Amino acid sequence: MANFVYRRQFPIEWGHCDPAGIVFNSRFFEFFDWSAWLLFEAALGVKAGDLPATFGISGIPLVDAKARFLHPAKFNDLVEIASEVGRFGRSSFEVRHRITIGGDLAVEGSETRVWATQDPDDETRMWGVPIPAEVIGRFTTA
Amino acid sequence: MANFVYRRQFPIEWGHCDPAGIVFNSRFFEFFDWSAWLLFEAALGVKAGDLPATFGISGIPLVDAKARFLHPAKFNDLVEIASEVGRFGRSSFEVRHRITIGGDLAVEGSETRVWATQDPDDETRMWGVPIPAEVIGRFTTA
Amino acid sequence: MANFVYRRQFPIEWGHCDPAGIVFNSRFFEFFDWSAWLLFEAALGVKAGDLPATFGISGIPLVDAKARFLHPAKFNDLVEIASEVGRFGRSSFEVRHRITIGGDLAVEGSETRVWATQDPDDETRMWGVPIPAEVIGRFTTA
Amino acid sequence: MANFVYRRQFPIEWGHCDPAGIVFNSRFFEFFDWSAWLLFEAALGVKAGDLPATFGISGIPLVDAKARFLHPAKFNDLVEIASEVGRFGRSSFEVRHRITIGGDLAVEGSETRVWATQDPDDETRMWGVPIPAEVIGRFTTA
Repeated sequence: MANFVYRRQFPIEWGHCDPAGIVFNSRFFEFFDWSAWLLFEAALGVKAGDLPATFGISGIPLVDAKARFLHPAKFNDLVEIASEVGRFGRSSFEVRHRITIGGDLAVEGSETRVWATQDPDDETRMWGVPIPAEVIGRFTTA
Repeated sequence: MANFVYRRQFPIEWGHCDPAGIVFNSRFFEFFDWSAWLLFEAALGVKAGDLPATFGISGIPLVDAKARFLHPAKFNDLVEIASEVGRFGRSSFEVRHRITIGGDLAVEGSETRVWATQDPDDETRMWGVPIPAEVIGRFTTA
Repeated sequence: MANFVYRRQFPIEWGHCDPAGIVFNSRFFEFFDWSAWLLFEAALGVKAGDLPATFGISGIPLVDAKARFLHPAKFNDLVEIASEVGRFGRSSFEVRHRITIGGDLAVEGSETRVWATQDPDDETRMWGVPIPAEVIGRFTTA
Repeated sequence: MANFVYRRQFPIEWGHCDPAGIVFNSRFFEFFDWSAWLLFEAALGVKAGDLPATFGISGIPLVDAKARFLHPAKFNDLVEIASEVGRFGRSSFEVRHRITIGGDLAVEGSETRVWATQDPDDETRMWGVPIPAEVIGRFTTA
């Protein structure tokens, strides 16, 4: 059994880069976030925007995020990002991301997220609920 | 002796927030980055934009960054961010950031950065050089 | 009678700038947006986040936005942005913004916004409602 | 003869959206900017990052930008953006962008850009130079 891995490729845009000509660090966390949504969309076969309604959750908010920058990504580089769930807890999970350029690892990082519900009276108050076994099962491949 | 701490306050803007009504995670790394520059500006008495020319470096690029999200920050919250250098290595250093709202810790994180020079033929190739003792000395207070 | 003008100053951050060393154009629209909220906060004496509840609206969504870039804004420049309502219609209004650096006009732009309510069943469907006379009155000074 | 039109499709990301659940306005100017680069890449057959070196320019900086927001774009909407040069001047040109969702026009806008060179001693000082006829010729189709 192996982890289900979601991969996408995209070019580095002018607006992603800072005066040193390399991607500004916060942009990598945008790339991570969107790949986390797409990973769930691909593994579960449900559009990202329909995940909350389909599974009765409010979202998959972040508990922590981190990145190591090994090699700069520059304007017009074609990057590939590969994302997988590294570990499922009872109500949280870790998404691991690896960004490569021409096969070389440029950035690696991870996010801890919660399978969350929210206070009906205050959408900004959220807490974890148990992740269904059938969800977890979709993130491994035979 | 204590670390020199740089503090600033600012409100959470509409454009910082996502559909859950809370700050989108990448924005915190923007807040960290700018506070790192302002910490150096305040400790060294040199405008952020003049740091490279003053110290003969090309910049202070990131090696890693991380954040833990403990409490959501919402539109119009007044946040305070306190930043300090937690540790100096030979050519790298760790900047620690704590974001509080009404005195409660909302986000804590850190960045590892390099005191760097660059290849004159390719500004995107950078490597660390020794941090001068007089620079390090400005980050502690009697 | 003159328009009420809201002014704020802030420095250009590293993360605002692109590989040409100048502010990336989309950032100016972030600056405009936040100044529009602060203009209303200052003129009406109500915190930006409380405007919807106080006036029974859902928000002040944009109908159009534009900017002319006359002079580049660079990392570490101290900019001043002055914002005022140039014209009130029945349910829409135009916010004008002027960004200066050292007294020289760098960027000027405007936003047309709607004093809006929303469909209770779909918060993304919004339409204009009449702007109260007492609101309009707060945007002129004797 | 018709204008050469560059089209691309992409989904609206969680991080593009604001607390009203719709795309925050500055993001559309990011979408415009990147489509302008891709339009030139497609019309001229030169990678965006190689345009400066290939044509002896420093870049294609903006003189103005504007957008009209007709219909909200929401999380997970699939948008199509179609971009073309509407008019060439001697050293400037206008790029027109139309964003549609399911065939309906959601946003339309334009950018005026300059075919520019820069001061060798200050990369932030740029001015227009004549656009070569062979460049202009690539933006029409028989």
